[in-house]
Amino acid sequence: MYFVKVYVTYKQSVLDPQGEAVKGAVHRLGYQEIEEIRIGKYFEIKVKKTTRPVQETIEEICDKLLSNVVMESYRYEIQEEN
Amino acid sequence: MYFVKVYVTYKQSVLDPQGEAVKGAVHRLGYQEIEEIRIGKYFEIKVKKTTRPVQETIEEICDKLLSNVVMESYRYEIQEEN
Repeated sequence: MYFVKVYVTYKQSVLDPQGEAVKGAVHRLGYQEIEEIRIGKYFEIKVKKTTRPVQETIEEICDKLLSNVVMESYRYEIQEEN
Repeated sequence: MYFVKVYVTYKQSVLDPQGEAVKGAVHRLGYQEIEEIRIGKYFEIKVKKTTRPVQETIEEICDKLLSNVVMESYRYEIQEEN
């Protein structure tokens, strides 16, 4: 069994209006020291072992389903578990 | 300047219907080896240095705004930057 963490974030050049809105809310709560907030998605995935490399499976799923390759980029970490 | 990454996830006892839906979609794409998907939120936050410890600020913001303490838990990593 593999335990995979996937992080999907907007590319640096893409505006993040949701993050801007949260930053505004944080400022209204009085936290002026917050300079920037960007929001992404986070996935925890359990994958059964097969003959296929897990990296391949995860990259295909990210490209097809979990991220929008035009606007977002992703990175992942794989842990092996028993 | 601090660069903080915050991960918000549902507590293990809380059902994650969005994750279940994505798992169903992944299975329909043919990836039967995916056993579980849980979806969380991911925040990248830039914080200016003040006299106040950054941990305190981040925990307050997480409790008040970024997470729902009843259903979700969070963890964070702080990097110091120049």
